[in-house]
Amino acid sequence: MKEPIYIGLIGFGTVGSGVVKVLQDNADLIEKRVGQPIKIKKIADKDLARPRIVSVEPGLLTTDVNQVLNDPEVSIIVEAIGGIEPAKKIILEAIGKGKHVVTPNKEVIAKHGEEIFKAAEKMQVSVLFEGSVGGGIPIIRPLRICLAANRIKEVHGIVNGTTNYILSKMHIEGRDFEEVLAEAKTKGYTEADPSSDIDGYDAAYKAAILAAVAFGAKVKLEDVYFEGIRKINQKDISYAKEMGYLIKLLAIAKETREGLEIRVHPTLIPQEHPLASVSGAFNAIYVKGDAVGEVMFYGEGAGAMPTGSAVVGDIIEIAKKGFIPPLHFEEKKVRKIGEISGKYYIRIQAPDKVGVLAAISSVFAEKKVSIAAVAQKETVGQVAHIVIITHITQEKAIQEALSKMKGLPEVLEISNVIRVGLES
Amino acid sequence: MKEPIYIGLIGFGTVGSGVVKVLQDNADLIEKRVGQPIKIKKIADKDLARPRIVSVEPGLLTTDVNQVLNDPEVSIIVEAIGGIEPAKKIILEAIGKGKHVVTPNKEVIAKHGEEIFKAAEKMQVSVLFEGSVGGGIPIIRPLRICLAANRIKEVHGIVNGTTNYILSKMHIEGRDFEEVLAEAKTKGYTEADPSSDIDGYDAAYKAAILAAVAFGAKVKLEDVYFEGIRKINQKDISYAKEMGYLIKLLAIAKETREGLEIRVHPTLIPQEHPLASVSGAFNAIYVKGDAVGEVMFYGEGAGAMPTGSAVVGDIIEIAKKGFIPPLHFEEKKVRKIGEISGKYYIRIQAPDKVGVLAAISSVFAEKKVSIAAVAQKETVGQVAHIVIITHITQEKAIQEALSKMKGLPEVLEISNVIRVGLES
Repeated sequence: MKEPIYIGLIGFGTVGSGVVKVLQDNADLIEKRVGQPIKIKKIADKDLARPRIVSVEPGLLTTDVNQVLNDPEVSIIVEAIGGIEPAKKIILEAIGKGKHVVTPNKEVIAKHGEEIFKAAEKMQVSVLFEGSVGGGIPIIRPLRICLAANRIKEVHGIVNGTTNYILSKMHIEGRDFEEVLAEAKTKGYTEADPSSDIDGYDAAYKAAILAAVAFGAKVKLEDVYFEGIRKINQKDISYAKEMGYLIKLLAIAKETREGLEIRVHPTLIPQEHPLASVSGAFNAIYVKGDAVGEVMFYGEGAGAMPTGSAVVGDIIEIAKKGFIPPLHFEEKKVRKIGEISGKYYIRIQAPDKVGVLAAISSVFAEKKVSIAAVAQKETVGQVAHIVIITHITQEKAIQEALSKMKGLPEVLEISNVIRVGLES
Repeated sequence: MKEPIYIGLIGFGTVGSGVVKVLQDNADLIEKRVGQPIKIKKIADKDLARPRIVSVEPGLLTTDVNQVLNDPEVSIIVEAIGGIEPAKKIILEAIGKGKHVVTPNKEVIAKHGEEIFKAAEKMQVSVLFEGSVGGGIPIIRPLRICLAANRIKEVHGIVNGTTNYILSKMHIEGRDFEEVLAEAKTKGYTEADPSSDIDGYDAAYKAAILAAVAFGAKVKLEDVYFEGIRKINQKDISYAKEMGYLIKLLAIAKETREGLEIRVHPTLIPQEHPLASVSGAFNAIYVKGDAVGEVMFYGEGAGAMPTGSAVVGDIIEIAKKGFIPPLHFEEKKVRKIGEISGKYYIRIQAPDKVGVLAAISSVFAEKKVSIAAVAQKETVGQVAHIVIITHITQEKAIQEALSKMKGLPEVLEISNVIRVGLES
């Protein structure tokens, strides 16, 4: 029997408990796969009393992070606190002490990945972060290893379960955003302050990580354009449905000749696209590579056990291989949102009278925006609801056309503008 | 600049050409990822004249396999011939000469994997086979590494593109099996002799490999129960659709307390299941693990470039890591098909007269088969078509009931029996 490999766990909340439970439940099987037992040596958390899904020997627990970091037997540190500080400081200290690090912390990897990987390479230790995107879904390692023969062209991901749950409910039940959000809050499906999910921050971190791994690029978070789902109205959902689309919040990363595109926004996608059937809190990441064609990875994007599966998968890889060199990230140009091209869904409210369509069309024509479809959906009182889908055009032209349109007497309100994506 | 890693390719058909094209197209990127260039040193094929999607320096080509196997600079052999011989002999010779092997050959791995992995372990060389299941879809490595923290419970895969294409066409276009098959042959979508696909052999090899990797089990091909899709009639497709199901040919591997189940057969699956939206020639593998929950891997299951992506992915992993120890496979009991339990769809033709349902029901009752739903679908002339869905029951009981039913005057024909799966 070989010596155990000792883990130090910092953060014993939902994710930390999942990690402990997976290591406990499957200890025999993991030992067989690694050739050595993997044991938790120390667990630090500021609150040792809160209820958890697992119980551990009280002797493992401490409120002092340094007891974990300084334990000479611990060779792998799992950072399961989340957020920037003290997570970042702990990761860098662990690396400085020559310990490998596993973290599912998307925010710290998205914001400080460069500094962390540099430190890790210098100390010849591994930093793995499979759990940072898509919870238990294998995506980082498949991009890094399985698809390494490919030039990745695009990645489209449903990477935030809360917003996908809300949009799915709106789609299936025909209810409005605020109502579904309120219910999700009551049921405990969202954080007390859900803005990191709803406003797209969480998905933006994940988009940055996906772009970095897929394209080997240094990604600055400020280069990631993002929008959340607050502006999505039931009208948009139902008009989209009538036209053969669903609305999903997508994390998008593309490499084009003109540079990278990295963005998060609600997107109209065709109902027959594989991502369209990803509903509720499920996540999926759809990847196009030059050799493999289309592949998609689907599963539970969050939760104690799925994230525990990803973290312990990383622990096992480090236990078997030791130092895994980080990817090399290069400077690459990231395009501004105004430079990208695509199709757009535009919903407008206008007075119900002659000449409205002519006025709107002439503004689009002036800005060289070609219209693919236009429909007057319904008229409430004196107000007509008009929906327009454009042909492929540059975003800048759309913005200019809309800003000019706002001054017209024929336009009461530009109610929403949503990008259209993933059409073949 | 480091020395190149030299590849020897044996078999320069569809897959071999895909491998060469991926290595040519992405040479710069692969060199960056590996830290060394990867170059093809020699290619053996019996026919050097046939047209291919790539061209290579004529000096690389030979009709003599030994020129490749004996080249001292070649450290990785790609076997891209397919079938058993000479593929098996070549793989074992390469291993004997201390060379790593990459092969997408499902048949040789399913039938002779044990012997091959034993030889490889003895010689401390890697044998990787990601391309053997699901073409370019990462599935072997995710099971082996990413999901290594999990006790895998079940794997359900759509792993044969030809049969999925035929079943999708039958479902969407309402046409019959023979007609769709004939069209697929004319269009070159199937082999001249499509029986390896249609009769389930191809899927059975893949089921054996999935079970071996997911459960660490020595799997003998004769323990894999398999059926093809020849008996699936348009009536079955449309009745299934009316009841909320689709029919898919599934490769199924489960680990239960009573032993492993490894089988391939047409299966009624719920229309809202993630596998239901996998249509045409696409493949997908749906996995349940105790920690990760449900995950699915989707993509193109065959073709030169997707398989090339998988093979070159394996080459890159070996180039970076050298010897990758094989999984350890244990003897595990495999259950006989009669021992498994499930729900069943049964289509019966009976005379259109009083007492038929009573007679049928009493046979089921006698064999303790409980009926979940029964419907008389249509009557053509004097013949009524009856469809029954059972509750969960042992397969043996179904077989006994049906064999007794065949003797009844109230039953003209038991037209089809199809297993129901993947219900939540």
